[in-house]
Amino acid sequence: MAEPLRIALAGLGTVGVGVIRLIETNRDMIAARAGRPIEIVAVTARERGKDRGVDLSPYAWVDDMQAMATRADVDVVLELVGGSDGPALTLARAALDAGKGFVTANKAMVAHHGLELAELAAMKQAAFAFEAAVAGGIPVVKGLREGTAANALDRIYGILNGTCNYILSEMEQTGADFGEMLASAQEKGYAEADPTFDIEGVDAAHKLAILAAIGFGTRIDFEAVRTEGITQVRAHDIAQADSLGYVIRLVGIATLSGEGEARRLLQRVRPCLVPFRHPLAAVTGPTNAVVAEGDFSGRLLFQGAGAGDKPTASAVVADLIDIARGQAGAPFSVPSTSLVECAPADPGERIGRDYIRFTVADRPGVLAEITAAMRDAGVSIESLIQRGRDTEGGNVAVAMVTHEGPEHCVGKALDLLEGSASLTAPPLVMPILKD
Amino acid sequence: MAEPLRIALAGLGTVGVGVIRLIETNRDMIAARAGRPIEIVAVTARERGKDRGVDLSPYAWVDDMQAMATRADVDVVLELVGGSDGPALTLARAALDAGKGFVTANKAMVAHHGLELAELAAMKQAAFAFEAAVAGGIPVVKGLREGTAANALDRIYGILNGTCNYILSEMEQTGADFGEMLASAQEKGYAEADPTFDIEGVDAAHKLAILAAIGFGTRIDFEAVRTEGITQVRAHDIAQADSLGYVIRLVGIATLSGEGEARRLLQRVRPCLVPFRHPLAAVTGPTNAVVAEGDFSGRLLFQGAGAGDKPTASAVVADLIDIARGQAGAPFSVPSTSLVECAPADPGERIGRDYIRFTVADRPGVLAEITAAMRDAGVSIESLIQRGRDTEGGNVAVAMVTHEGPEHCVGKALDLLEGSASLTAPPLVMPILKD
Repeated sequence: MAEPLRIALAGLGTVGVGVIRLIETNRDMIAARAGRPIEIVAVTARERGKDRGVDLSPYAWVDDMQAMATRADVDVVLELVGGSDGPALTLARAALDAGKGFVTANKAMVAHHGLELAELAAMKQAAFAFEAAVAGGIPVVKGLREGTAANALDRIYGILNGTCNYILSEMEQTGADFGEMLASAQEKGYAEADPTFDIEGVDAAHKLAILAAIGFGTRIDFEAVRTEGITQVRAHDIAQADSLGYVIRLVGIATLSGEGEARRLLQRVRPCLVPFRHPLAAVTGPTNAVVAEGDFSGRLLFQGAGAGDKPTASAVVADLIDIARGQAGAPFSVPSTSLVECAPADPGERIGRDYIRFTVADRPGVLAEITAAMRDAGVSIESLIQRGRDTEGGNVAVAMVTHEGPEHCVGKALDLLEGSASLTAPPLVMPILKD
Repeated sequence: MAEPLRIALAGLGTVGVGVIRLIETNRDMIAARAGRPIEIVAVTARERGKDRGVDLSPYAWVDDMQAMATRADVDVVLELVGGSDGPALTLARAALDAGKGFVTANKAMVAHHGLELAELAAMKQAAFAFEAAVAGGIPVVKGLREGTAANALDRIYGILNGTCNYILSEMEQTGADFGEMLASAQEKGYAEADPTFDIEGVDAAHKLAILAAIGFGTRIDFEAVRTEGITQVRAHDIAQADSLGYVIRLVGIATLSGEGEARRLLQRVRPCLVPFRHPLAAVTGPTNAVVAEGDFSGRLLFQGAGAGDKPTASAVVADLIDIARGQAGAPFSVPSTSLVECAPADPGERIGRDYIRFTVADRPGVLAEITAAMRDAGVSIESLIQRGRDTEGGNVAVAMVTHEGPEHCVGKALDLLEGSASLTAPPLVMPILKD
């Protein structure tokens, strides 16, 4: 059998330990599939002494993480430290610069610096892979980079954050409100103590930017992702969506439109109304799912565990096997020099239907005021639900669904209502996912 | 840009024409992703003159299909002729023997001769790929060969035949019976004039045998697949399953059990009761879906169009792109010499729950006779439904669901009832898919 592929592992949190366990558990099978053994030779983490439940004695301990990058006995540096910048990025640059392969699960770093790292990897003819950075154990980076490679994709979307999906589907099951379910998610380990990146949609935005770059062949543009989280979604939104035939999910959507110079990319993470019959409606709990729509493949769905030490380790080691096989390929499917710059689309030009929920004072004339603003802005109302006085402080929730139209009209209607004494809280707009 | 990858295309049915259209439509994008152009240089089919809606003049026409295999101007032979043996197999052997790459969508041939062809390909260091042979446009061969490569899988299952799934989900929607929906599927082009291979489960069995070999690293063993089709499923079975919280789907299931010498492989295609909450329950119409359960990845689902010219072309060209990139890899994930022989499991040893439907004469004592046989065979009944006299000829349908137990007990119960005058038609047993 050929020479082993030798790995330096930086970061011994749950995922790092998961990778060690996986490589130990499935050692022979991995060697058979990779064509050669995959061996961890060196490890590093902040604290050496900590008991992590695995025996680290077979591996060289390295105190200075950055020293991993230049060890002569290492072929691939595996970064599981996290953080978009700082030590992870320094390590990535140093490893690739030294011509080592570089594998990471770090979505923030790939979203911010993936293009630079891909260019460096190409220059050094080094492998750079990040399957684990998107949707945990689901092989969707490979799916888009290789599986759909023959297709022009025009839409990539999905449920990219398990924490939000857990909270939303639990709200759906229990009728409880957001705050209560967030606390429950934290208790069960599905949400961090500081859940900001998850519930505000930033984590999903990292993943969406990566998928869009791979699927569309565009230069990764995380800054252009427009992001809204789920903190404004209320139990009565979920109930009203249900009565209309929808569930609410946090969906990242990337859409490519136009041709040539006029090509535009829209990247958004927002809570959306998903029709019951759509496959994403059936995705509950901390599961992730990605849909890619190709001109020949049609709609493809990839679904599975979006996080967790074992699924993430599965994705990390799949990358290592690809590298061992000599099949790593271009990280974004095409050479990084071929990735094209694509200007962000104006979201106002989106043509679609929206759910709008107003929180209003319970007095005569409020509905007339709202519907007049809609009319003046050119928004056509498909259905309107006024609920009884059961929200806090004697306010009433008025929800409506618009007919298909340009999104900027909805924006204009809300501008017209801005400052109105009838509205006791900012309205919430959620798009209806096109089937 | 590097030299083009030159393709000889055998077979100009809908898929062959789809491949020509795809390669023409997405030419530049494919070249960017593949690192070099992919060019069809020669084509062949039975009839030369036929109008296929595409211009064949750019390609050399070859009258003798077998001559494709040895043309000096060809790198890869693409076989879209079909048939497990005959000209397709002769071409496969000749192409690989000549050291050409060989790509096919031919599930029957791969199921019967895939191991031989993989061995020949390895000997000649030629690429051999068949993504399109399983589940149309879904990149599930790649998913199992590479995406889950770090995992020991213990179960691979899915909806592998679009015709059956269309018929069953239409029966569910309309309440109509099998024959009526088969006719409707034929009218709409979802079923062939001779639907035997589809409705008897043979097509799904071909695909299952291929997936099992890739996922488990076993020598492909199509003969060992135990296959039952959907012709015995009645509208009242679907109604009764529904009342119990299930839909009926034709599911191919491959399960690996035991260790070392005692390792056993169970491969079966059968109509199954699928719990509403299971992702396969949401798969309707001609869609396919494959679930792989890995020890680290957990449950992964791959879903999409299972057939059709465009999705199949998408899968075929993905294989060509892999070959152009030099990333074809071992067709069954490990070198064919490493694939292990695995004896078939005894299906009677399966521990599970079953749905059993009896068609019985409507007279006193019948239920007592059936339940006594169950008791004597050691089958424990979880629930029992006796419907009114609404089936043909004054018979009554009695359905029951068993508690978990060994399948051979159910077989024994049916043996005890064999020849009983109370049973007016053979019973139908369908397993309940484990969640």
